[in-house]
Amino acid sequence: MDKSIFAVVGGDARQAALANMLAGDGITVYCAGFEQSPHLLTGTASTDPLTAVLMADTVILPMPPTRDGKTLNTPLSTYRIELDEEFCTALRGKVVFVGIAGKLREISPNYAKLNIFDYYANESFLVRNAQATAEGALAEIITNYPQTVCGSSILITGCGRITRFLAPMLRNLGGKVAVAARKSKDWAWIQAQGMDSFSFNKAMRRAKDFDIIINTVPAPIINEKFVDGVSDNAVLIDLASLPGGIDFEACERRGIKAWRALGLPGKYSPTTAAEIIKETVMLILEEE
Amino acid sequence: MDKSIFAVVGGDARQAALANMLAGDGITVYCAGFEQSPHLLTGTASTDPLTAVLMADTVILPMPPTRDGKTLNTPLSTYRIELDEEFCTALRGKVVFVGIAGKLREISPNYAKLNIFDYYANESFLVRNAQATAEGALAEIITNYPQTVCGSSILITGCGRITRFLAPMLRNLGGKVAVAARKSKDWAWIQAQGMDSFSFNKAMRRAKDFDIIINTVPAPIINEKFVDGVSDNAVLIDLASLPGGIDFEACERRGIKAWRALGLPGKYSPTTAAEIIKETVMLILEEE
Amino acid sequence: MDKSIFAVVGGDARQAALANMLAGDGITVYCAGFEQSPHLLTGTASTDPLTAVLMADTVILPMPPTRDGKTLNTPLSTYRIELDEEFCTALRGKVVFVGIAGKLREISPNYAKLNIFDYYANESFLVRNAQATAEGALAEIITNYPQTVCGSSILITGCGRITRFLAPMLRNLGGKVAVAARKSKDWAWIQAQGMDSFSFNKAMRRAKDFDIIINTVPAPIINEKFVDGVSDNAVLIDLASLPGGIDFEACERRGIKAWRALGLPGKYSPTTAAEIIKETVMLILEEE
Amino acid sequence: MDKSIFAVVGGDARQAALANMLAGDGITVYCAGFEQSPHLLTGTASTDPLTAVLMADTVILPMPPTRDGKTLNTPLSTYRIELDEEFCTALRGKVVFVGIAGKLREISPNYAKLNIFDYYANESFLVRNAQATAEGALAEIITNYPQTVCGSSILITGCGRITRFLAPMLRNLGGKVAVAARKSKDWAWIQAQGMDSFSFNKAMRRAKDFDIIINTVPAPIINEKFVDGVSDNAVLIDLASLPGGIDFEACERRGIKAWRALGLPGKYSPTTAAEIIKETVMLILEEE
Repeated sequence: MDKSIFAVVGGDARQAALANMLAGDGITVYCAGFEQSPHLLTGTASTDPLTAVLMADTVILPMPPTRDGKTLNTPLSTYRIELDEEFCTALRGKVVFVGIAGKLREISPNYAKLNIFDYYANESFLVRNAQATAEGALAEIITNYPQTVCGSSILITGCGRITRFLAPMLRNLGGKVAVAARKSKDWAWIQAQGMDSFSFNKAMRRAKDFDIIINTVPAPIINEKFVDGVSDNAVLIDLASLPGGIDFEACERRGIKAWRALGLPGKYSPTTAAEIIKETVMLILEEE
Repeated sequence: MDKSIFAVVGGDARQAALANMLAGDGITVYCAGFEQSPHLLTGTASTDPLTAVLMADTVILPMPPTRDGKTLNTPLSTYRIELDEEFCTALRGKVVFVGIAGKLREISPNYAKLNIFDYYANESFLVRNAQATAEGALAEIITNYPQTVCGSSILITGCGRITRFLAPMLRNLGGKVAVAARKSKDWAWIQAQGMDSFSFNKAMRRAKDFDIIINTVPAPIINEKFVDGVSDNAVLIDLASLPGGIDFEACERRGIKAWRALGLPGKYSPTTAAEIIKETVMLILEEE
Repeated sequence: MDKSIFAVVGGDARQAALANMLAGDGITVYCAGFEQSPHLLTGTASTDPLTAVLMADTVILPMPPTRDGKTLNTPLSTYRIELDEEFCTALRGKVVFVGIAGKLREISPNYAKLNIFDYYANESFLVRNAQATAEGALAEIITNYPQTVCGSSILITGCGRITRFLAPMLRNLGGKVAVAARKSKDWAWIQAQGMDSFSFNKAMRRAKDFDIIINTVPAPIINEKFVDGVSDNAVLIDLASLPGGIDFEACERRGIKAWRALGLPGKYSPTTAAEIIKETVMLILEEE
Repeated sequence: MDKSIFAVVGGDARQAALANMLAGDGITVYCAGFEQSPHLLTGTASTDPLTAVLMADTVILPMPPTRDGKTLNTPLSTYRIELDEEFCTALRGKVVFVGIAGKLREISPNYAKLNIFDYYANESFLVRNAQATAEGALAEIITNYPQTVCGSSILITGCGRITRFLAPMLRNLGGKVAVAARKSKDWAWIQAQGMDSFSFNKAMRRAKDFDIIINTVPAPIINEKFVDGVSDNAVLIDLASLPGGIDFEACERRGIKAWRALGLPGKYSPTTAAEIIKETVMLILEEE
């Protein structure tokens, strides 16, 4: 598959960086939805969304493509790009890349029929994205927690890709890290790296022991009862995709510092995040 | 399931340690097949295999249960324990634990009908076993390679559980580690930890660059052509289960140091290895 | 030595945290110079500087005690506290703790005669402060550099305490770390941990190879010639105490991102930073 | 200083490897004292000790040069090489390299007058040697301790170079590491890396908590009283140079496994050990 004209439409700083990077590789790139990008889009042709799509044979949409189910996710633009039938028609016959394809397919039966590839369903993408997320989480923790990670007691709930990067990072800084997980095989992985691991129930019983609590599970794990048990000086950070897993109201009621940290790769490592999408897209194009 | 009488029949130092450990927990344990164990079996009743099985309601056999398909795997005994129909009849109605159950089921249709649980099919077991294997491999490498790991260039072929423990261990000692793997998602995992990763083909092309080559794949990866490319001073170690993946004849022809390292947990960490089996058995018994 | 009344006068967030911490330990604490502290000073008596000093038998001054050689270093106050003879007289007969005592002694012969203890000259303090500095530097790098540390090529100039913490931290995140130093014994330490190390001259010759350049030497190491050699996309961070070691004008001329990061423990880990001062002060009091 | 003819006289496998390595660099090398070396000395001229010394302008003696104060340290030879006045006369006017020069100077006033350089007094040598020692100690521990390092509780006494390499190595394998040391600045270094550190007295009080106890201090730290307190299953390893610091008789009385591990770089990494000596010698020759 030899696709030489790309459109990058919508998304945050990493999509803007992606457009630049493709242009830097000598690819013709049409852009739309980046009016407020702090970075110049050099070597790309900025235009309106429909034109961008129509000019290209490969279209790259953001992750997620929409937050409201109706318009494109365009945090760097004040214009609304409607995900209507006209836009869908423009996409027809193109190779459409998107993160979390289901959100696009749900819009209408015609959207579902498009030739969609989901870069967010690619395991290599997810691994590299998790590493970038863990680095961002590290910066968030160091910045928002008034002690050093070294010497602190840290709980991470959930044992997916992010945890597998973040737990050793925190341990290497000198933190005492415990991971709460559901499956005994996850306990084994963590314990075999010299960290503590146990059930969510045990985590709740031991809640007061932790200085830093990091949730990665998109389910109400750190619920009101859990929050009631944590130490006054603890900080809580929710890395799980919406709706997350921390009861923020309960935290506020107790005066406990808690915050949501989403889109960390785009925030802390936009260039790498763009590169990861680019390489995943190119790999998928090659394999087709 | 409340099983109070155990038999531990056959196996290496870790099965002997397992018998001791169960006895230490106050469990009645009958043993057979450990006449030449360097460690005393204290608190257990040593007897012949048939009696041991008949007295128990839970029987623990080794991993693998047999190497020749006919007799029990008993490296610590000079007696042959035939896996015949009489032995099978004795096992009937018992809870039988074994590592690599297929080897037992293949013996005869009656063996296949036994109530068998495979501790080697348990993910927690495999993870902890892989960690113990990686520690043993580390000792083998330090002992047999005349330079320090620090500053050496190391190739690991395959990216399974053992590699996921061993690669960071070697990197933490200051080695330059590269992992050859088939899947791009494995490359991503390794690269996201700051190590190099690429295809088997590239590994072969770069063969001469490595001081230490560690195979974990039970397939002929380090074949004659590969061996022809390695440096004169390289050492090769095969951790893969038989038939392994290194062409030892080709190594010998070139005068290159190469060796097979199997059963490392039993050799380097018999107590931990026994503990891992015990905990897996107990977990399976609880869940039944 | 049993000193029960403390004064904490001047300094940043960590001195404010220190006052709170001492009060939390049941010690009587007089404070001055924290009118703009974002954190409440609870359990302490806020007053004017002279009164605070006169009421106490142990006085804790900031690090450094003065930036202009005339007034106390009070970033959290708009009032000027003159380091005049009256203030000096008030300090007479007290146990005076300060960071970088020379700055206080230089003010006048009478200041030099005070009973001064320098917590910044204590090796344990410096080690713990270096660890906190390294954590803060990590956050600064992740936040200001648009790629992940993983996969980046990093140069650290100088091989003191901060480098000994920061270099392995960055390496553990997957960065390729090199340390430029003057002494071959420092090269040996770094190389023996599996990182690269070489002379400042070689660093300059290889300047274009690095994505992130971190200076820790308070001498003009990263001079105009060096800056001329670095890559367009490199970022430079100066951790060395003033005047630092990076030619910022040269960086600006080339449009290269460069910044100074000072007082990182107070900025990123004020509670830990306060704790380190407290423990050092208490240790010195005990030993007297 | 341009010295083209070397003699390598006496020593273990690393001195043999050193002779080979120098010959491989195109240097003329005379050897003596390696009749029983398992490795061929290729490209070198084997001769008697006096001839070797007389032919060379640079002589490399082992570390230590003598164990009995009278004869050369020649573990790879059955011949005794007397350190008498004749041998001393032969060395006169040569550049003599030796490890622990004091042992040579003590022999007689004439030996003390030789032109001696001590490679063992070179900081770079000591650092690299400590790293090699730590790798060897790791292999000794994995080989001789029946559990995995992962999950074990480990005490290291002393906080010199070896400990600074070995402690993080063991921690990275998943061990819980504590370091007993005399100075609070050492406690700070270890704690700031996320490990435990305390006084020798506290170590003795907590003796029973450790599975593995490693001594690096050449003083009676692990005395009878200490040994009385350790757990029945503990293993003790003494890395300190003679007389070491463990009361082996007390260990034997209690039936506790304990052993002395000396000369680890020569045993586990002879090639690297030789390289370290070679580079140190060359550096010293260059600087002269």
